[in-house]
Formats: sequence, C-alpha cells, structure tokens
Amino acid sequence: MLSAISSSLLIPNKPLLTRALLRCPILATNPRALSSLSTASALSNNAAAAAAGGRTGAVSPASVTEEDLQQRIDVNPPKGTRDFPPEEMRLRSWLFSNFREVSRLFSFEEVDFPVLESEALFIRKAGEEIRDQLYCFEDRGNRRVALRPELTPSLARLVIQKGKSLSLPLKWFAVGQCWRYERMTRGRRREHYQWNMDIIGVPEVTAEAELISAIITFFKRLGITASDVGFKVSSRKLLQAVLSRYSIPEALFGKVCIIIDKIEKLPLAEIKKELESIGVLEEAIEQLLQVLSIKSLTELEEILGDSGEAVADLKQLFSLADKFGYSEWIQFDASIVRGLAYYTGIVFEGFDRGGKLRAICGGGRYDRLLSTFGGDDIPACGFGFGDAVIIELLKEKGLLPELGLQIENIVCALDTGLQGAAATVATILREKGQSVDLVLESKPLKWVFKRASRVNANRLILVGVSEWQRGMVGVKILSTGEQQEIKLDELD
Amino acid sequence: MLSAISSSLLIPNKPLLTRALLRCPILATNPRALSSLSTASALSNNAAAAAAGGRTGAVSPASVTEEDLQQRIDVNPPKGTRDFPPEEMRLRSWLFSNFREVSRLFSFEEVDFPVLESEALFIRKAGEEIRDQLYCFEDRGNRRVALRPELTPSLARLVIQKGKSLSLPLKWFAVGQCWRYERMTRGRRREHYQWNMDIIGVPEVTAEAELISAIITFFKRLGITASDVGFKVSSRKLLQAVLSRYSIPEALFGKVCIIIDKIEKLPLAEIKKELESIGVLEEAIEQLLQVLSIKSLTELEEILGDSGEAVADLKQLFSLADKFGYSEWIQFDASIVRGLAYYTGIVFEGFDRGGKLRAICGGGRYDRLLSTFGGDDIPACGFGFGDAVIIELLKEKGLLPELGLQIENIVCALDTGLQGAAATVATILREKGQSVDLVLESKPLKWVFKRASRVNANRLILVGVSEWQRGMVGVKILSTGEQQEIKLDELD
Repeated sequence: MLSAISSSLLIPNKPLLTRALLRCPILATNPRALSSLSTASALSNNAAAAAAGGRTGAVSPASVTEEDLQQRIDVNPPKGTRDFPPEEMRLRSWLFSNFREVSRLFSFEEVDFPVLESEALFIRKAGEEIRDQLYCFEDRGNRRVALRPELTPSLARLVIQKGKSLSLPLKWFAVGQCWRYERMTRGRRREHYQWNMDIIGVPEVTAEAELISAIITFFKRLGITASDVGFKVSSRKLLQAVLSRYSIPEALFGKVCIIIDKIEKLPLAEIKKELESIGVLEEAIEQLLQVLSIKSLTELEEILGDSGEAVADLKQLFSLADKFGYSEWIQFDASIVRGLAYYTGIVFEGFDRGGKLRAICGGGRYDRLLSTFGGDDIPACGFGFGDAVIIELLKEKGLLPELGLQIENIVCALDTGLQGAAATVATILREKGQSVDLVLESKPLKWVFKRASRVNANRLILVGVSEWQRGMVGVKILSTGEQQEIKLDELD
Repeated sequence: MLSAISSSLLIPNKPLLTRALLRCPILATNPRALSSLSTASALSNNAAAAAAGGRTGAVSPASVTEEDLQQRIDVNPPKGTRDFPPEEMRLRSWLFSNFREVSRLFSFEEVDFPVLESEALFIRKAGEEIRDQLYCFEDRGNRRVALRPELTPSLARLVIQKGKSLSLPLKWFAVGQCWRYERMTRGRRREHYQWNMDIIGVPEVTAEAELISAIITFFKRLGITASDVGFKVSSRKLLQAVLSRYSIPEALFGKVCIIIDKIEKLPLAEIKKELESIGVLEEAIEQLLQVLSIKSLTELEEILGDSGEAVADLKQLFSLADKFGYSEWIQFDASIVRGLAYYTGIVFEGFDRGGKLRAICGGGRYDRLLSTFGGDDIPACGFGFGDAVIIELLKEKGLLPELGLQIENIVCALDTGLQGAAATVATILREKGQSVDLVLESKPLKWVFKRASRVNANRLILVGVSEWQRGMVGVKILSTGEQQEIKLDELD
C-alpha cells in the first residue's frame, strides 16, 4: 500500500525538498509538538507525510495554501470524553444489550430524546451538583442550550407534550449519553451513558418495587450477588414530615434535600451552616439529623408513629421486596436522600458492599416534576444507572466478560486474478447469513492465517485456480485444521 | 391516582386560593402561553397544578419562591431535533439493527467517538457546506468545540492516535448522531444518525467494491431493488487529471471539487465564476465541464486514454461489481463529485431512481485525510448513510415495517392483597426469560383487557384468591380466548 503511483497526467513530486524536511526530528517523531509550531513547520510535516508514501494518487504538495497551514490536530478526544475503539465498543454493546434485555423482560418501551436540549429544562434553583456542572452553550441563534446532564427532564417534557394521547401507565426506558462539565478529578469523565427506567402514572409503591426488581435482575444476569451489592432505601417524606412539623416553607424542600445529600462529603458543621443560611431553624436541623440517623423501620415507627405516609410506603416496599424475592438486597437507611431536587417520595441507591465505589445507581419517586415544567402532575418514579461504576465493579469482581471478535469465515483469493471469484464466494456466504472477512488485497498465506487468527475466524476459505475451474473452493476449519474441497453451491 | 393524601404531620392545602386561580382560562388550557406571562401567572399555574391533584404527598404551595418563578418550559425538543417516543424508537432500533447486521455480515467492527469534538477537527478551508453548518460553541474552558457534523474525521483522529498498535486493514463501522446548524428549510433537521463503514489500509478498489456491496446487501434486506435505487460512480482522479494537465496547484483540488459538487444546485455561469475566482483558467474550466458530462467508461477512455489511474480504477470497480453480483445497481457518471473536501479517488452516491429524494448515501476514497491531521497517510475509503432519506424512501415504496409492541405476558392480581403474589408470578416468568407487563395498580378487569390489547400481550395471567391458595394461576391465551388454570411451578 505504500507504493507511489504515477500517472502521465500528473506533475512530479518534489523529493529533494521533502526529504530534507524529513530530517527534522521533531516533525518525524512527535506530530503533537506541531500544534505550536510555525507555518513553515506545519507545511513541512504535510510534505513529509506525502513523501513518506501512501497511495496518494494524483496528490502532491505544490504550494503553500490555507489547507497546508491548517493547525495539526490533537489526536485525543476532548478532555473528559471517550473514543470507543472496537474492544471498548464490544463492552459497551454488551452492557447496553443487557440493559435492553432486562427492560424487555419488564415490558418497558425504549425512548430517546435530543442530547442537546434547551438549557431551561435543566435549570432548577435548588443548588444541585448537576446544575453547577451543566455543559451549556449559546448556539448560533443565540439560544441557551445544554448537553443533557440527565434524561428525566426530557422524559417529563415529552410526557407533557404528548399529553392525553398517552395511555397510562407508561413504562419507558432509555439508554443515552449524558454530560457534565466538572473539574477533571478522581478520573471522573465529562460524559457517561445512563440507563433509565421510568414508570409514569402509578402512585403506588409497587412501581418503585418493580424498578428495583429490574435493577436486581440486571445484576443477577451479570453474576453480581446480594453480597456484592445492596440497596439503601428511604423516603423524602421523612424529611418532609420534619419540615412540616416546624412549618418550614414547602419551597425549601428541594434545597434542604440537596444540602443533606452532601452529608457524607462535608463536615457536619458545614451542613448545619448551609441549612441555617436558607432559613432552617436549629431545632429543625437537630430533628432532621436525628431522623437521618435512623437505620431501622422499627425505630422509625417509634419516632414518627405509624400513621405517616413515609412509614406506610416503606413498609409496603419491604413487603413487596419479599414477594419479588429480593429482601436480602435492600435495607432501610434514612440518610439516603439523593442529589436531585425533584424527588418527592421513596428514594433508593445501589451501593458496593465492598465500600470502594461510588453509588452504582439511584432513583426515586418524582410526583411533582411535571408541574415545575407547567404540566399537570402525574405520579412518576424512575432510576438512572450509569455505565462507569458498574464496569469498575465488574472488574473488581472478575466478572467482565471476554468479548473477542468472532467471524464465521475468512475468504481469500490465492491469485490476484481471482479477487472477483473471492467476492462471489463472499456474497454467496453472506446471502446465507454468514459473516465473511473478505481479504481485499493480494497477501501471502502466512499473513492470511495471522489475520484469521486475529479475527477469530471459524473457517478459512481459499479460492485457488484449479479448484475454481472445477467450481470448488478449499475450506479449512481453523480450530481442527480439518481441510476439504467443497462445491460452490454446497457451501453453507 | 388523583386522590389527595393527608398526613398528620403536614400543613393543610389552601383550596380557596387555588380554586380561584383555576378559573383563569389561559392557565387551564394553554400552558405554553405561560412563558410570556408575569410572575404572578406563573405562580398561579403552579398552584393550579397542585390543586388539580396528583399524588403530591407532602407538597403544597406555600409561598412565592425562585422555584415557583421558573419560566415554563417549551415542551418541544430544540428546533431541528427529534424526540423518539416508543413508536419512533422502534423504527430507529429496527433501522440500526439492520445497519449492524449488515456490518456483521461484512465482518466490520463497531466503533464510536465523542459527539462533541474539538472544532479544529472539522475545519477545512475548502468551503464545504458541512463547514458552514458546523454546530460549534465555546465551552466553559474557552475551548472551541463542535457537535460532530460527520464521523470520518473522528475516525481518522482515532486511527492516528492508535498508530502502530492497529493491524491493518481495519474494517470499522459506526452508527452515530451528527449535527449541522442550517436554516430550517425543506424539512431538513439539524441532527441525524449516520451509518458509516470504513476500510483503512487497503489501496485497491476491492475496498470500494466491498463497501458498495454492503450497502446493496442492506437495501436488499429491506426489500429495496435495483429498480428503486441506483449508484452513480466516478473518480476524483478525473478532475485531478484535468487540473494537473493545466498545472493548476494541487492545493486547489478540494476547492474545485466543492464548487463542482454544486453543479446541480447553481447556474452554470455561477459555477464558472466561482472556479475563476479561485484561479482556474477558462480553458481548464471548459475541460473540467467536458469531463463531467461524460456518462460512459468507453467515452471516458476515448477522451483520457486508458493509461490513467481513474480509468483503470473505474474499470476494475465495474468488473468487481459483476462478480459481487450488483452490476445492475451501478453506473458511471462523471458528474458525481461528492461534497466533502477530502475524497481523492472513487466517489459514489446512492440515488432514488424515482428522482424524488436527495442522495440516500455517499462515500469514496480519502487517502490523504490522515496527513491533513498530521498523521502518516494510510489508504482509506468509506461511506455515510443517513437515517432520514432511507425512511422517506421506505415510506414511498410501502416498505416500512409494522413494528408493534409485543409482550409475552400481562400479569394482574384480582385482589389488592395479591399484588405481592402477582409480583412473585412476574419474577418466576422473567427468570424464565419471558417478558411480563405487571399491572401495578388495582384496576378493573375491563381496563386490564384493554391494556393487554394495547401492549399486544400473548397471555393474560390472573392471580385470584382461590387459585392462589391452591398454588395455581389463571392463564388466558388472548388470541384464542383459551383459558386454564396452571400450577405456579409448571408455568413457563
């Protein structure tokens, strides 16, 4: 592929110039160093690349133009983003197909929304981390837009838009990329994919129980057990009850939750100060902190009585967990609040029992989100499950699958004149549903065997002159070495 | 779901206020009118929504806060973008699964890249339409970024990054969303999904022939025939040959191609003027236009002779097309140039023979792209296939598939006390790989049958008190009406 090809119509290369430039060691070894170099250097690298060969056809550097002066590219993806070369993509596809298969088992329908949304959709005034990390821009039409940091607001928007045409309940799932612009610490990225499942239109706790069941079904498929992962469950109605008892305005609810969600990251004094600063009295703060420290439903009933909704919801959830068969996975923990402003009821979080990883997934009930967008409220709950922590967990537990490439056939012409014949063989096999890696160049057999091994082919099909004349091809089963001639029309 | 639930801990609702506000007709019927209304109206709508019910739990409007004042949301996706509600998503998934299945048959590996890339990756100075429509921004770190308008530059970036660790040839495909900021005319959107297949490392025309074979395999799977769709094929080396003959600088090549690509959209005089303005002499322009009007390979050989690469490449491609079995799909047409600056050799375009639709797909050889990014050139070719025109074509031909929802079981408790039992039944079936729509609320049987019909369930499984006590459930095959009791452990 590196042979230079000339044409009678072409003007000649300028080898003297380009060879001289090739001697510049920075240019030859470090293309990234170029980005800060001058015009002349940028040109020379281009010339050097042309001189180095490549089947550039009618292409040869002739004069300095804008195109030549183009700045050299950073070969890395933008900070905080990922490329998915084949091996990474296989892992992503495997993960997503498990998301989709579990969603299918639970009879959820897939949906999606634009990755770019109006910024207003994500702006809430509760001081969520997600708000501060909004990846937002002004577009050419001077509209404020943002790469979605989460999927739920788009879902709510679509539900309002569709209005009465929808038959409730909706059971929807999505697998979409989400973005947050945060300082690049602790190896966190600026984009991740998130699996969401949402149930719209069911006020009963059966909905939350169903969602947790789906996540656990997913874990089990991957080989993760209740001793690897647990769920902490609580209800925001506990905090709500305390706020109401102290006549703290409803409107502060979201803010209180967001502050309390930081309880494991900030010193207690800081939490108290933040709560005071938004107008929560010290007495109420003490009561909040007392409630948050409760670790059993029995204790909760003792303190709050059994008449409240929070206790009733939680008791029903634990009863359903038993019927769904996942009691051993879940535990009550009043300190779970979750970091999104819009949750109103049950909240839950999947955690690594090993204690090494961040939350694996989380969700809850958000019965009020639609009205904050100007729609009528519909009871709703859902969860988000990112693609990052789960991969870390699978690595940790040795549960990452081996996902090699797997090809059924590699087809190769033994003679350049038989390239077309090999194409015919490939077409026949593909029409029968078989995957074929067709060797597109004249290569030595040694190379073909190496390639066959790399793509993990089952069979090598060789198209040779004498066999082809008899309407046959050579077929070699690569695992056994077994070899035979097969008639073209018997190939399958 | 609209029952108001009170708790001893909660402060009461304020029904008088909210009912008064509900009487405002604009607020009750047209939430979108709100965005331009005052603070007071925005608040009142929020209050109205709360008063309308919803299981808002401990939530009641108490005082005007920032959150209440939040501007009402536009329920439509941003201009030029799409939501994918379930029915649209099923179509998208079906299309993508066909892209993926054909790619698998051809032994291509899937890859992906960030949807947000550095702007520099897409900036070429050839005046492509795609350049003018770049969806670009400045991020919070003052970096110029862009939503990718196409996938090929990212692929080239990744290939350079991976360098020698890659075993050539690469056969990669991607299905990714691309963006362009254009005036919203003719129903064109600002985002679309694109299927790309690329072969990196093969200088021979077998690579282009293989790519076209893949697209045709895709068409055939969907029921599209050679009388619906054709391919126009040419080579940019034809233009290159003319430019060289007139000693026109190589660096103008991209610009010349981009101008000529507009030949069907602009008056000829305009094309000539543009070519003149970049320095192409009139004589050369006449020769270019003469070459572009050639419609047969024979004629081409007569004019250019048979020694040039362009003629040799095209002859080989047509010979291979015959062996691949798709001769009837392709034709030579020198006027095909394609609108991307980086093509260097064979270019092709799939077109609607009915003449109603824009190009369905297009591609070609781009042996020089890597060097424009500072890498060493590797011979490469590929195509892009959008998700928009193909759907229009399938509609036109009556080939759009019926993609209804399809669920294996709907499971319903006949008594509220048996919700847990129904959950157990659902879990048993799901563990056996069966999809289950679990009814999560107490609903009348009439509602359940309606739901079963909507989700297209095969079986209705009813969990009733007397059957459950005997370890049985009622099973009704919905297509036949056949009904029986089945033991729980015999359910599959």
